[in-house]
Amino acid sequence: MPSSEFDIIQRYFTSAVSERDDVVHGIGDDGAVLHVPIGMDLVVSIDTLVSGVHFFADVDPAALGYKALAVNLSDMAAMGAEPAWATLALTLPTVDASWLEAFSRGFFELAERYGVQLVGGDTCRGPLAVSVQMHGFVPQHAALRRTGAMPGDLIYVTGTLGDAGLALHAVQNHRRLPEAHAHYLTGRLERPSPRVFEGLALHGIASAAIDISDGLAADLGHILTASGVGATLNVERLPVSRAFIATAQGDDCWQLPLSAGDDYELCFTVPEEKQAKAEQVFARFGCGAMCIGIIEPQPGLRCKRASGELLVPSTSGYQHFEPVST
Amino acid sequence: MPSSEFDIIQRYFTSAVSERDDVVHGIGDDGAVLHVPIGMDLVVSIDTLVSGVHFFADVDPAALGYKALAVNLSDMAAMGAEPAWATLALTLPTVDASWLEAFSRGFFELAERYGVQLVGGDTCRGPLAVSVQMHGFVPQHAALRRTGAMPGDLIYVTGTLGDAGLALHAVQNHRRLPEAHAHYLTGRLERPSPRVFEGLALHGIASAAIDISDGLAADLGHILTASGVGATLNVERLPVSRAFIATAQGDDCWQLPLSAGDDYELCFTVPEEKQAKAEQVFARFGCGAMCIGIIEPQPGLRCKRASGELLVPSTSGYQHFEPVST
Repeated sequence: MPSSEFDIIQRYFTSAVSERDDVVHGIGDDGAVLHVPIGMDLVVSIDTLVSGVHFFADVDPAALGYKALAVNLSDMAAMGAEPAWATLALTLPTVDASWLEAFSRGFFELAERYGVQLVGGDTCRGPLAVSVQMHGFVPQHAALRRTGAMPGDLIYVTGTLGDAGLALHAVQNHRRLPEAHAHYLTGRLERPSPRVFEGLALHGIASAAIDISDGLAADLGHILTASGVGATLNVERLPVSRAFIATAQGDDCWQLPLSAGDDYELCFTVPEEKQAKAEQVFARFGCGAMCIGIIEPQPGLRCKRASGELLVPSTSGYQHFEPVST
Repeated sequence: MPSSEFDIIQRYFTSAVSERDDVVHGIGDDGAVLHVPIGMDLVVSIDTLVSGVHFFADVDPAALGYKALAVNLSDMAAMGAEPAWATLALTLPTVDASWLEAFSRGFFELAERYGVQLVGGDTCRGPLAVSVQMHGFVPQHAALRRTGAMPGDLIYVTGTLGDAGLALHAVQNHRRLPEAHAHYLTGRLERPSPRVFEGLALHGIASAAIDISDGLAADLGHILTASGVGATLNVERLPVSRAFIATAQGDDCWQLPLSAGDDYELCFTVPEEKQAKAEQVFARFGCGAMCIGIIEPQPGLRCKRASGELLVPSTSGYQHFEPVST
C-alpha cells in the first residue's frame, strides 16, 4: 500500500503513457516544464467534479477518472484547441488502492486516445473531489469563442441531446432504464465523447462555439449574451437518439434535449455563406451535426414548435448554486 | 447576492487587475487563450488546500486567498520561473458575499504584487477547498530542477526556518504566542513570502532547487533522491529568526527548523566555484541566504551539531496521508 502522497502519485499517475515531445520535464519537480509550438497560442481550461454535487459518492471510479478528463477535453473542443497536457488535483477521503487503480485506468484510457500527457498533480486527503486542468494549442488568433455569432448565422449541434439527462433522471428517480437502451444511455452520462476532432474541424467555419455542459438553452444563452444577439430554435429539429425516443415518457420530455446538461456536444454558429462548405465537413463527423435554428438581432432565446407554438425551457440550466435571497 | 456560479465568478474574480499583454482572452469562455513568449518554456504547478487538512475551517478568508496563491508562487520560485497566469478552482459550502470578498482581496493583493492575472476559474458547491494552478515562464532549458546537485555543492536556504511551524504548533496546542512576536510568527504561517525574485536570481548559480513546504529535511531529501547524492547539514547554521529564538522552548526546538513545513523558503545547491558570485547575488536578497551544508556522494541526510553529534529529524516531513497497512 502507498505510504505517502509521493508514493501514490508515483504509483498510479506516472504510468507509461505516451511521452509527448513538447513535455520538457513532466511529473517529479515543483512544476512541469512545457514547450508551446511556435505560432500557437495556449488554451487553458479547468473543471472540478465534487462528490454529491457532480457525481454520486459510490460512482464507478473508472467512470469518474474518464469523465473528469472528458469534461475538460470538451472545453478544448469548444475552443477548437488540440489537447496536449493535463494536471490533476485529487482529494481523497482515504487511500484505496483498487479505487485509485480504477480511477487512473479510466483517466488514462481517455488521455491516450487523445494523446494527452499528465504533467502534474496534487493528491491530498479530504472530501472526494477531482479538479482537472487541460492545456491545448490553437493557431494564433484562431480560437473559437462565444462572441462571434451574427444575425443570420445558422445554429448547429453535434450528436444527440438529452441522453445523459434521461440517464440521470432515471438514477435520481430510482427508475430502471429499458434493458435495450440502458447501456447506451448510461454510457452517455458516464462516458461522454468529447467532440475534439469536430471542434478542430470548425476552424474557418464556425463564428462562435460552446460545449453543452449545462443544457442547450443555458449554453446557447452564453453565446447569445457574449455575442449580443438572440435566436430562434426549431424544437422539433433538436437531434435525439433512438434510445431517447424509445425511453423518454411524458408530454414534457422535449424539455430534456433543451435543458438537460451533461451531453458534452458542441453548439456552434455558421455564417450562411459557409453552410455548403460546413455541411461537407459535418458529413465526415461520426456524430453528425444538425441545424436547429438561426441567430437573430432581437435578444433572447425563442423555442418554437413547427406549429408556431412558443415553448419555455423548464430551467435556465443546471446551476451549481441555488439562488439565495439577500 | 449572487444567484449563480457565473455571477459569483463575475463579481469577485474578474476585478480590474492588471491586464497582461500575453493574455489574448481571459475569463469568460470555455478556456483562456494565452501567448507564451518566443524563447520561453511554460512552467505549470498546481496545489490544493483543503479545509481541515491544510487550514482550519474558520480561517481568515483573506489569508486563505493569499496563501493559496503564495504556495503556487513558491513553486514558480523553486523552478526559477517568472509567474504569469493563475487559474482558481474554488469549492464552497455556501455563497457568502463577505467571505468571497475577503478571499478575493487576499488573492488579488498578492497577484498584483507579482503581476499575475487570473485567467480562469471554476466555482462549485461542496466542502471548502481551493485549488490554484500557476503558469510561468523560464528561458528554454534553464528551469531550476531537483536533479542537478553534485557532490561538493554547497547547500543554501533563504530567509529563516521554523517560524511557520512554531506558529502552527501554538495554534494546535492552544498556546498564546508572546505578544511581541505573535504578529510576525502568525504572518509567517498565514502569509508566507514566496521567494520569486530570489528564484529568478538563481539562474546560472544554483545546480538544484526546491521550495520548503514540507520541511527542510523532507524537501532537501527530494533533491538528494532526484540527484542521486547525499548531504551533511550543520544544524547550528540553520537560520532562525529573533522571534523564533525568543519563543521556541524545549530541548528539541531545533527540530522545527529542520522538520516543520510551511516556511516556503527556497533550498538550493551551488557549485563551489560559483560561491563567490552567488554570495554577491544573495547580498541583494532582502531575506538573505545561508550556507547550511554540503552535498556528498554518500546517500542519505546527516544532520550534525558542531560537536559532531548526529541528530535525527523527528519526522520525514508532513505527509498528507498517514501510512496505512495492507
